[in-house]
Amino acid sequence: MANGLDTPATDGARRIVISVDAMGGDRGPAAVVAGLSLSAAAFADVDFVLHGNQTELSRLVERESGLAGRVTLRHAERVVSMHDKPSQVMRHGEGTSMWSCVESVKAGEAKVAVSCGNTGALMAISMLRLRKLPGINRPAIASLWPSRNPGGFNVMLDMGADVKADSGDLLQFAMMGASYARNGLGLTRPRVGLLNVGTEEHKGRAELKEAHDLLGRTAEAGSFDYIGFVEGSDIPSDRVDVIVTDGFTGNVALKTGEGTAKLISDFLREEFNASVFSRLAALFALGTLRRLQRRMDPRRANGGVFLGLNGTVVKSHGSADATGMAAALRLARQLAAADFQDRLAARVASGIRAGQDAAAAETPSDTATGTGGGTKE
Amino acid sequence: MANGLDTPATDGARRIVISVDAMGGDRGPAAVVAGLSLSAAAFADVDFVLHGNQTELSRLVERESGLAGRVTLRHAERVVSMHDKPSQVMRHGEGTSMWSCVESVKAGEAKVAVSCGNTGALMAISMLRLRKLPGINRPAIASLWPSRNPGGFNVMLDMGADVKADSGDLLQFAMMGASYARNGLGLTRPRVGLLNVGTEEHKGRAELKEAHDLLGRTAEAGSFDYIGFVEGSDIPSDRVDVIVTDGFTGNVALKTGEGTAKLISDFLREEFNASVFSRLAALFALGTLRRLQRRMDPRRANGGVFLGLNGTVVKSHGSADATGMAAALRLARQLAAADFQDRLAARVASGIRAGQDAAAAETPSDTATGTGGGTKE
Repeated sequence: MANGLDTPATDGARRIVISVDAMGGDRGPAAVVAGLSLSAAAFADVDFVLHGNQTELSRLVERESGLAGRVTLRHAERVVSMHDKPSQVMRHGEGTSMWSCVESVKAGEAKVAVSCGNTGALMAISMLRLRKLPGINRPAIASLWPSRNPGGFNVMLDMGADVKADSGDLLQFAMMGASYARNGLGLTRPRVGLLNVGTEEHKGRAELKEAHDLLGRTAEAGSFDYIGFVEGSDIPSDRVDVIVTDGFTGNVALKTGEGTAKLISDFLREEFNASVFSRLAALFALGTLRRLQRRMDPRRANGGVFLGLNGTVVKSHGSADATGMAAALRLARQLAAADFQDRLAARVASGIRAGQDAAAAETPSDTATGTGGGTKE
Repeated sequence: MANGLDTPATDGARRIVISVDAMGGDRGPAAVVAGLSLSAAAFADVDFVLHGNQTELSRLVERESGLAGRVTLRHAERVVSMHDKPSQVMRHGEGTSMWSCVESVKAGEAKVAVSCGNTGALMAISMLRLRKLPGINRPAIASLWPSRNPGGFNVMLDMGADVKADSGDLLQFAMMGASYARNGLGLTRPRVGLLNVGTEEHKGRAELKEAHDLLGRTAEAGSFDYIGFVEGSDIPSDRVDVIVTDGFTGNVALKTGEGTAKLISDFLREEFNASVFSRLAALFALGTLRRLQRRMDPRRANGGVFLGLNGTVVKSHGSADATGMAAALRLARQLAAADFQDRLAARVASGIRAGQDAAAAETPSDTATGTGGGTKE
């Protein structure tokens, strides 16, 4: 995976423009601008269109010398809050920074949109303005999951774009997830698994058995290896790269995993604080515990990608700080540099054409990964 | 929760008989008999009916002096393997130790059955021989989950008895789960939550919105507090005692939680082994790490309880060692001592009678918890 990470393309031949919603995150626009600054320093080929309150933003941006000449401000009067209902935002969302952020991708001035606002509202606006890719029934949200794989992450989808999925949707998720793993994680031939309650063929819901057959027949055309059913315990394993499930199950699994990690980390802290001796032990173990924390740090995996639309949208965690925001921007840049959107659209189109041919077109070329540099570590 | 834990009733007034399947676990009958021995030492009021290969078992039991006079052997020629399909076991399972184990409960010679064999087969045999409680549509498996609650555990169901559940099933799961929390965890008025992808009322699947209304209307009659929707991150929290979901989602969540805990524990071990200094730090931190391990030890929460049948069956983890087996037996004893099966049946019946009255009958009496002693710590 060590293919030029953090080595920006400095030839200036191609500028990558990312559209960023500055408002709506829990930490406000200051954290977003700080993330922009980190990202601008790491990648010389990236420029930003930043949406939100112009007065506030220009003050924040001017403070960061590294952002000089790299940011175009776009004033938006209103902000989508975490409590706004998606249906309301669809009707009355025009004039919000989130709407404006997605609009930049629709207009073609930016290649990817990034927001840390309300997920449901962001999906609603993205669906309304970008529309679904021809042939896609349900768009999906793909997230990265810390794993034992060499790259440190697996891809899982759908994480909650919709609460259900039939066998045809699950097949589309597999095609899109494999495409994302190729372009976002640099895996030439991703291994795809279908999440179920057991690995035996007779287990699970009817739509899963159907999808199991469909995936087995389509893997070759989709340039992925289908490894069959996987269980919840396999999500962080090194036997699968892309885990396919419906948005209800995916969302519950994600939050259960986060909740378990948080519980263990809290218990660890409590135990290390329990006595004078254990506090002393904690001092000795500090470096080790910090390395563990870094390995499990959810900020490193920040960025749920909306797949199946005419344009790429990255949902950053609502509580993202500068580091988290920079991770989401790095992911956005990587996907833009790899021409992910065009490759995904081509893949979906070819999937619809009954899945002949395949393979060729989409695997990232040497150039793309060589200058891309942002392959998720 | 510290109500007489590990203080067996020694008056001999009432013997509790537990039926145990000695075969079918990953570690074989030796681990099961070792667990029996621990359990017999901890609880003087418990006797066992042990099912399996008589020659092998009599040799193992004779070695444990603490089991003298406490174990009745019941020979069974055959063993259900982990790979046998439930449908086959239903047709051809007679003569297996698992079948014989459940039969002891049906015949009334034991109050609870415990097996660490194949879950699907155990549920199939239990359904066939014990039959569903009148009025119950889908039986469920309830498990304990490490949590921030004072007792250290929450209850979650269904963990995989069936892959689906409609709103009526979810209501029955709530009634049964609350009853289990009262009798198994000693909680007078359990807080029940419905697992969903968000806590807002407009979110989730149709059957969840229906169940949400049903639970709100039935909580008073069921003697529990309904706290509304909860998310995956709330499962280990201290704001809920009983988490209700369908068996597909429950099973995925359980295995995802286990997988995450395993990943973190492996990463922790790797980091502490990374250098001479970190290995030294590990020595200092050993006591602390052991306390953490104990707190998260899945063996302490061993025992999925089948709810909704005419008889109580406890499914121990397939890989349970003596400690894990002893935890499952302690749970079985606690449920037997609390007359859980009768209370559950009464609760379900009253739930069917439109849920008037309620409250009284089922809360464990002082006597039950006082001499019961096995309230899960």
